[in-house]
Amino acid sequence: MRVLLVGAGGVGTAVTRIAARRPFFDAMVVADYDLSRAQAAVAALGDAGARFRAARLDASDEDAVVAALRSHECDVLLNATDPRFVLPLFRAARAAGANYLDMAMSLSRPHPDRPYEECGVKLGDAQFAAAEEWEKAGALALVGMGVEPGLSDVFARYAADELFDEIEEIGIRDGANLTVDGYDFAPSFSIWTTIEECLNPPVVYEADRGWFTTEPFSEPEVFDFPEGIGPVECVNVEHEEVLLVPRWVDARRVTFKYGLGGDFIETLKTLHLLGLDRTEPVTVPSATGPTAVSPRDVVAACLPDPATLGDRMHGKTCAGTWVRGTKDGAPREVYLYHVVDNQWSMAEYGSQAVVWQTAINPVIALELLATGAWTGSGVLGPEVFPAGPFLDLLTEYGSPWGLREQ
Amino acid sequence: MRVLLVGAGGVGTAVTRIAARRPFFDAMVVADYDLSRAQAAVAALGDAGARFRAARLDASDEDAVVAALRSHECDVLLNATDPRFVLPLFRAARAAGANYLDMAMSLSRPHPDRPYEECGVKLGDAQFAAAEEWEKAGALALVGMGVEPGLSDVFARYAADELFDEIEEIGIRDGANLTVDGYDFAPSFSIWTTIEECLNPPVVYEADRGWFTTEPFSEPEVFDFPEGIGPVECVNVEHEEVLLVPRWVDARRVTFKYGLGGDFIETLKTLHLLGLDRTEPVTVPSATGPTAVSPRDVVAACLPDPATLGDRMHGKTCAGTWVRGTKDGAPREVYLYHVVDNQWSMAEYGSQAVVWQTAINPVIALELLATGAWTGSGVLGPEVFPAGPFLDLLTEYGSPWGLREQ
Repeated sequence: MRVLLVGAGGVGTAVTRIAARRPFFDAMVVADYDLSRAQAAVAALGDAGARFRAARLDASDEDAVVAALRSHECDVLLNATDPRFVLPLFRAARAAGANYLDMAMSLSRPHPDRPYEECGVKLGDAQFAAAEEWEKAGALALVGMGVEPGLSDVFARYAADELFDEIEEIGIRDGANLTVDGYDFAPSFSIWTTIEECLNPPVVYEADRGWFTTEPFSEPEVFDFPEGIGPVECVNVEHEEVLLVPRWVDARRVTFKYGLGGDFIETLKTLHLLGLDRTEPVTVPSATGPTAVSPRDVVAACLPDPATLGDRMHGKTCAGTWVRGTKDGAPREVYLYHVVDNQWSMAEYGSQAVVWQTAINPVIALELLATGAWTGSGVLGPEVFPAGPFLDLLTEYGSPWGLREQ
Repeated sequence: MRVLLVGAGGVGTAVTRIAARRPFFDAMVVADYDLSRAQAAVAALGDAGARFRAARLDASDEDAVVAALRSHECDVLLNATDPRFVLPLFRAARAAGANYLDMAMSLSRPHPDRPYEECGVKLGDAQFAAAEEWEKAGALALVGMGVEPGLSDVFARYAADELFDEIEEIGIRDGANLTVDGYDFAPSFSIWTTIEECLNPPVVYEADRGWFTTEPFSEPEVFDFPEGIGPVECVNVEHEEVLLVPRWVDARRVTFKYGLGGDFIETLKTLHLLGLDRTEPVTVPSATGPTAVSPRDVVAACLPDPATLGDRMHGKTCAGTWVRGTKDGAPREVYLYHVVDNQWSMAEYGSQAVVWQTAINPVIALELLATGAWTGSGVLGPEVFPAGPFLDLLTEYGSPWGLREQ
């Protein structure tokens, strides 16, 4: 297997560090718009970097991506960029005849008239529209293969196959107790993506209703996270699992709730109130005259880059899937989860917990595809494939998962 | 009298509308960086605009301002720009031998080590440093001559002369019940200036301690505003009156508290937490490549221009001076105030209440200087001059003030 990894930010860099310890692939080309970022990721691998090389690549330039896949003879593209680049990379992989993996799906657009009641364009719609084309070509686009979506979907498959006869609700629940020394406010994940997720209308699935949306921050609940994280206020957020899980797993209801905490919710509401979450440009003065800039880019530019904060960060992050249903006629409720301690991921990999937890999952998926444990064609989510081999590798990689009976 | 009015924003435009009804001056040149704004202000006066003309002028270009004062033979410059342009306009007036009025003073800089305990550079320091030069030239710079500072200082003078033998505390208190249809968040005054005022360390004066600073939003109190506005949460804010009043009026303590209300205080705190109140540029993408922009300018660009909101605004705004002390041996406490109803100012002048209330005061001051009721030289605040003639003209202009015994 020869991999074109596009994006050498926090997640892409962690992918190289995890993959470098595994023998399943022959080569990984690390490509970024900023060549020096790609070079830094490869250089940091030291002696373990023989299979890696750095390249400059504009992820929005489909022709350039096709050319890169061909010239490096890559048979799979792993997309570690932000969601704005999903479609050009997805199309370029198809055009070059390569398989494709990503960790976030093509973006949604709210319903024009009833944004908080009905779905408009849903997450991943643009990718699923091409499913037949991929299937006919015998090629695989494995979409949403990070931690959430990704591992959370694998947990849903595992619950359906091994733990339940009937499932009432599958609820992804994400929470952390991370703090950053020296900053009163420093999100541990891309603020651009966090705003996109949290201020878009949240999507919910119900078997008798299909997909529908609600007001942002709806249905607040306090969820008690394991391994000392404790109770965190969670609210509905737009997330890929709600679109993926019901396509392949039977459940009466599917939700995603993010443990943002009360203060962070208030901060996001204020950004929205002031219009600072917008991506449409506004005109402001600059040294070279009036310039159009995106307010959301300015918000991001005012905050520290989360990928650089690992040294100052303390605490744990938890991703998981809570499932309620019946087994052998009795009610059952479990939380399947994966916790990463920032101190451990920094010491072991030099990557902060949130990006490391995202990065490990596509590496495991690549290994399962390389060994043939996972095979398929079309545009497929992680819940299509057998969960056992994935969860076994997670433990083998040194980062075991947990199961809590509620 | 021939006036160069610099700035044809909300306040400058309201100045033209108020002044057009008064015969005391011969000519008013309305100058703005954006000529069309100046032309629109003059055109809106219709038949009453014979003494007005529009001109293009860059307020940051001292030489150009001197040239404009000379070519139009103006003997006074009225500064209606934002506080960043105070110093170039103040210096240009001096260079051209003109008198000068403004409604906000030169900006402060926090103390480098103890910003929330000691003053650094204070509001107006740069202007008072030139006081001797103005005095020797027999020229007048009347600084802080809007509503607050301005009318509030006139009230302090009036209280000292007419209502009290000894004054314990002079506290400027500003509050409103304005709402804007169709906007969840729409400040009724320049957000740039509001951030500057509210996030700088508030300054307090005490006779035995001099000037000192506190944490932002300190000493919250609920003040009951008159004429139906009612109770509003007020907090300490950096404001010119605290620097002006103690120079000329005996009082043991001087404060300024702004009735921001709890929600607005939280919004400002969030902007500060995210670093979006900063004026130092950050680099963001734009269509023409990476560009440096000021986050605070972006915040302002995301919000509607307060000068354009008059039609959608409802409610009243109150400026005033609360004074506590003794008269004839007995304790006394009064609130001297001025309320403008937005519905009235829109119907009568086509200007929203907050900008209209700011604009009327420098027009009255110009009239008092033109008639010789007020004379002086140096860099002086409104409390230097007799308050009676000013307050009489306020009533004559159709906008009476009030006195409430507490």
